[in-house]
Amino acid sequence: MALGKAEAFLVTHLPNVFYLCGFTGDAGALLVEPDRATLLTDSRFTTQAKEELKGTGVRPKIVKGPLASAAAEELARRRLRGRVAFEGARMTVVDAARLRKASPQGRLRWQPVTGWVERLRRVKDADEIERIRAAARLACDVIVEVLPLIKPGVRESDLAAEIEFRMRRRGASGAAFETIVASGPRGALPHARPSAKVLQANELVVIDMGAILRHYCSDITRTVFLGHASGKVRRWYRAVAEAQAAACEALRAGAPVEAPDVAARRVLRGYGLARAFVHSTGHGLGIEVHEEPRLGRGQLQPLDRSSVVTIEPGVYLEGIGGIRIEDDLLVLPGGAEMLTDAPREFLEL
Amino acid sequence: MALGKAEAFLVTHLPNVFYLCGFTGDAGALLVEPDRATLLTDSRFTTQAKEELKGTGVRPKIVKGPLASAAAEELARRRLRGRVAFEGARMTVVDAARLRKASPQGRLRWQPVTGWVERLRRVKDADEIERIRAAARLACDVIVEVLPLIKPGVRESDLAAEIEFRMRRRGASGAAFETIVASGPRGALPHARPSAKVLQANELVVIDMGAILRHYCSDITRTVFLGHASGKVRRWYRAVAEAQAAACEALRAGAPVEAPDVAARRVLRGYGLARAFVHSTGHGLGIEVHEEPRLGRGQLQPLDRSSVVTIEPGVYLEGIGGIRIEDDLLVLPGGAEMLTDAPREFLEL
Repeated sequence: MALGKAEAFLVTHLPNVFYLCGFTGDAGALLVEPDRATLLTDSRFTTQAKEELKGTGVRPKIVKGPLASAAAEELARRRLRGRVAFEGARMTVVDAARLRKASPQGRLRWQPVTGWVERLRRVKDADEIERIRAAARLACDVIVEVLPLIKPGVRESDLAAEIEFRMRRRGASGAAFETIVASGPRGALPHARPSAKVLQANELVVIDMGAILRHYCSDITRTVFLGHASGKVRRWYRAVAEAQAAACEALRAGAPVEAPDVAARRVLRGYGLARAFVHSTGHGLGIEVHEEPRLGRGQLQPLDRSSVVTIEPGVYLEGIGGIRIEDDLLVLPGGAEMLTDAPREFLEL
Repeated sequence: MALGKAEAFLVTHLPNVFYLCGFTGDAGALLVEPDRATLLTDSRFTTQAKEELKGTGVRPKIVKGPLASAAAEELARRRLRGRVAFEGARMTVVDAARLRKASPQGRLRWQPVTGWVERLRRVKDADEIERIRAAARLACDVIVEVLPLIKPGVRESDLAAEIEFRMRRRGASGAAFETIVASGPRGALPHARPSAKVLQANELVVIDMGAILRHYCSDITRTVFLGHASGKVRRWYRAVAEAQAAACEALRAGAPVEAPDVAARRVLRGYGLARAFVHSTGHGLGIEVHEEPRLGRGQLQPLDRSSVVTIEPGVYLEGIGGIRIEDDLLVLPGGAEMLTDAPREFLEL
């Protein structure tokens, strides 16, 4: 990794620490220097750090007290001088003060930087793509498997519990995020938590779920209708499905990051639903469920080859419900490869 | 809430935002002023904010872009002057720079403060205690219910999935943290994640689990043995059980926060196990699973009446396994009330 003009780089965001050295503990900071790397962690993770860092060349070091203080003390002990980069978007104001306090007067200049590791993570290697593909397949298998359970009388929270349980039983280490089951008017809340509400006939049901498998995430949304939908509801679903297809179509390496969002909004505008779509069209996916890039308006930089992103336009109608369709795609030069293959057509259950 | 010499206070830590106004969305910042309070959030949470803030007197405001920038712009629009406090341990360096950038030159002085809301949260009111009590009862019911499933041949990850599923089915909105099932030598990792390892005869199994129920957490650990334990293992278990009882005994309002830790270590030292206990004795419990106070050495301030804390000493023996016993207790003037009632004696299954 290029350190620019810095003598060292302190990585504090745990998914970045995992990406760089494979450590999965809940507390750790990685100090990267041109000729070495040191993982600072505490005594709860002594054995785990030793095991996970085996063969990486990264040295584990068990410290006490705040990791930021320990990192600055480590550099002070080495008599390092000059600029040290740290992750400005992943370090609190209090920890940044600790860095400075534990540094000998005038010798270290702490410099906040952003996105150094996130930029690397944006482009997935073959192993990462395989893991995401497997996580995507797992989520699709589970959503198909639970279709018969989506019926009137079932509580949202029980359906969410079933989904998470089945993902775990198929090998997921957990859900990539709190599974959303939002029925009827609750579907108009794009980030609704599953409630004790019972699914009812003649309601839309939005299910947004994802698995973590071997440390990589998937994220998929399907919307079904319980019963026979009205023409209006079918038209809304068609609008979202067309917007989603247009966004997927617009996705290819080299195109502007905003292209899928622009495409989705154009379709929804044609249906008079532009204002019902209240979030951006998608996001990168990998070790975290929300990564770079954010597929929103005004993002003019080109899409990277071998990025993995979600495409998830939706419409939200207060008092009625929501419709969202979300898939995971691998960005390639000529277009994008769909990683999620669960049925996308309108299901009336 | 007292704002000291500040004209306003920006609350960015979501559990603190929830504590103060009841908003449960994933993105929000609360701007507290002497005569009003404003919740800043984005368009995904329009309806939810409106519903959750009903009757609180807090005004929801939908903003675009980073919440820190929006907060500073909101104050600038009002032509506020003077000191504005923000949560220094809950704000990144990048967001703090946004606060300053969006503030008119010289008019606002942003001041990092710590623990203002956390200090309030340390003392639970009757409703909070009821919620934690219910979350504790739920976790105990589930651990008792799964005892028959803890047997050789079962995968750690499957047992963890069963536990989380059963907590959800009993009404939990989720697990308070990733359930730990650590068997045999893996138990020597205090924060082991459940793996594909299969439980085997003649192993210790550590189970650390908790539920979130109506937004409040529980946290309980039990350790069992599969088969007939050796005298050595029984002696270790006895040491931990005695240390845990001594720590619970030392817990009462007005005693130093470190008292339970001192008591637990004294017992373990007597067994020659002082160095096998690698973490602090417990932590506060509430909206978050780790809250103030931290029951560790050197914490000399007095324990608050109506705090809720965990007591969880353990020993970790590399290559062999771990033993930890953890309960949740309510701190009272004369002592502490146990909120978790699952059997604490050594179970050989």
